[in-house]
Amino acid sequence: MEIGISTFVETTPDVKTGEVISHAQRIREVVEEIVLADRVGLDVFGVGEHHRIDYAASSPAVILAAAASRTEKIRLTSAVTVLSSADPVRVFQDFATVDAISNGRAEIMAGRGSFIESFPLFGYDLNDYDELFEEKLELLLKIVASEKVNWKGGHRPAIQNLGVYPRPVQDPLPVWIGSGGNSESVVRAGILGLPLVLAIIGGRPLQFAALVKLYKRAAAHAGHDLSKLTVASHSHGFIDEDTETAANKFFPSTQYVMNTLGRERGWGSYTRSSFDDARSIEGALYVGDPQTVAEKIIYLRKNVGITRFMLHVPVGTMPHEEVMGAIELLGKEVAPLVREEIARWESEGVES
Amino acid sequence: MEIGISTFVETTPDVKTGEVISHAQRIREVVEEIVLADRVGLDVFGVGEHHRIDYAASSPAVILAAAASRTEKIRLTSAVTVLSSADPVRVFQDFATVDAISNGRAEIMAGRGSFIESFPLFGYDLNDYDELFEEKLELLLKIVASEKVNWKGGHRPAIQNLGVYPRPVQDPLPVWIGSGGNSESVVRAGILGLPLVLAIIGGRPLQFAALVKLYKRAAAHAGHDLSKLTVASHSHGFIDEDTETAANKFFPSTQYVMNTLGRERGWGSYTRSSFDDARSIEGALYVGDPQTVAEKIIYLRKNVGITRFMLHVPVGTMPHEEVMGAIELLGKEVAPLVREEIARWESEGVES
Repeated sequence: MEIGISTFVETTPDVKTGEVISHAQRIREVVEEIVLADRVGLDVFGVGEHHRIDYAASSPAVILAAAASRTEKIRLTSAVTVLSSADPVRVFQDFATVDAISNGRAEIMAGRGSFIESFPLFGYDLNDYDELFEEKLELLLKIVASEKVNWKGGHRPAIQNLGVYPRPVQDPLPVWIGSGGNSESVVRAGILGLPLVLAIIGGRPLQFAALVKLYKRAAAHAGHDLSKLTVASHSHGFIDEDTETAANKFFPSTQYVMNTLGRERGWGSYTRSSFDDARSIEGALYVGDPQTVAEKIIYLRKNVGITRFMLHVPVGTMPHEEVMGAIELLGKEVAPLVREEIARWESEGVES
Repeated sequence: MEIGISTFVETTPDVKTGEVISHAQRIREVVEEIVLADRVGLDVFGVGEHHRIDYAASSPAVILAAAASRTEKIRLTSAVTVLSSADPVRVFQDFATVDAISNGRAEIMAGRGSFIESFPLFGYDLNDYDELFEEKLELLLKIVASEKVNWKGGHRPAIQNLGVYPRPVQDPLPVWIGSGGNSESVVRAGILGLPLVLAIIGGRPLQFAALVKLYKRAAAHAGHDLSKLTVASHSHGFIDEDTETAANKFFPSTQYVMNTLGRERGWGSYTRSSFDDARSIEGALYVGDPQTVAEKIIYLRKNVGITRFMLHVPVGTMPHEEVMGAIELLGKEVAPLVREEIARWESEGVES
């Protein structure tokens, strides 16, 4: 079981002071968060790509590179790369360079984008949302598979037998498919035999078990080795010494972000009671003391088949020290509890 | 006077052993070279962009970011960014992120590209060589000047009042124009009032004095403050304890690269005698002991008006320790000699 962090490098106003941190400061803080995650033994850190004023990471590879040269073991991934509006050649080059710097620790999580700001910015049409992703993923996988590339599509100039450099340390450079829970994406990932990352940020995580089954069925149908498939979840959460403190610290900025996005997307308003409900063992929020969060991760592993868990923290702007505290607890207390329990299953042959 | 290093992160075969270093290893070595350059007090480090098997840096910003988080003072620049075949929005986002990580030490050197591999790779037509650069430079400068961008051109989708993030620490983020010595580029840089970097890698450096005058005339004509204009040179060279050792170590890989490029471009063959000729005070090679190299840099400053000197080292693959040795001598011995002489001029009011 891999355990790590993902973040969107938000720069929303501080819910207490109203102060807005600069993009630059938040980026530097995130580099420190990745360095700490490595020191406390976490397995992976993911940085999401956005193109709006309240998010500072439009170039995840550049941020990950800054951390790559200061870390030893942690894997470094986008979470996600909005592949639909990117050039797969540049994406590969950027992450192959991160892979070089980190000596084989880079990954790409490719997604269609849950935010759509990048489409007008890079001149793409939202009507081509799915076709763009399909085509660009095909090109990215060709570049990953072979140094010399031949490719032709409708949304990017063709490539005739040209090399793409640098070549990475890992062969192949890992490419994950990021999905919000859409069955088509899950089937696509399965057919391609690619690792899958699910954004489990609402509803009941148990509902995702059906999607994981669908993914594995598609993969089996396409002839892939099921024992090599990995499924990650990306879920909001926060850890503190005790559960009430964790909840009280995490709620305000989460509410701010959920209501901001909710206004844009027509969601209902986000209340403390829906927040508290999602903290139950059946809910999608991983908020609490280390024991509570460890139990929920184990539950997710047992019932949904997740083999990598990424805690998304913070949601909105929280004080950097509080985020650092949660990362430290995840690495030093939660991860050992989870790993110990899974080692116990494995020694007892319980795991499916 | 700023003194620094530029490199193209080459992975040509070792001239002695025939061994080819991996892209990944060379990239990690370059990060160490930047860290050393910072420690020995150099002012700037530049990484060039190429898209071919014998060069490992297709993503200079990613490499610079890895160094940004491990350095304190050194400025970090591309040398150059092939802007003609890039998307200025991504270029800005990448370097604004490096600027964030380095807390205000990033620069972009924009060039049309002396290598043309990126044109077919990204689907551009070489017939549009100059128009592409002109148009993309215009967009890049708009993004640098203002958060919200309105722009329309022929080679990239239009942008209608959209923001580009993250915003950098430096306002404006420095954009230099890189030129091989073409008078049109120099005039363009002057008219725009942008700093100019000249690739002085052959012929007689004194011949560039006329170009610098042309640049300043164009700038004056456009109403720019001449006292704020800076001109950099980028020149091949190597430093060792004594001049003969420096020459003998630097010649073989330089000859290899000059002959490889010469075959592609129809140049004559590169001989030891043309190499030795270029080491004279009138020539374009900065090879020798610290005193010799310092004298040549001072000569360039005095006679051509260069205010930033970037030693391009290595040319082709040289042992990493030899490159580290040259960087250390440049920082610890050459730079103090040059700075002392210039301080003397300034105190005597000699400088023009």
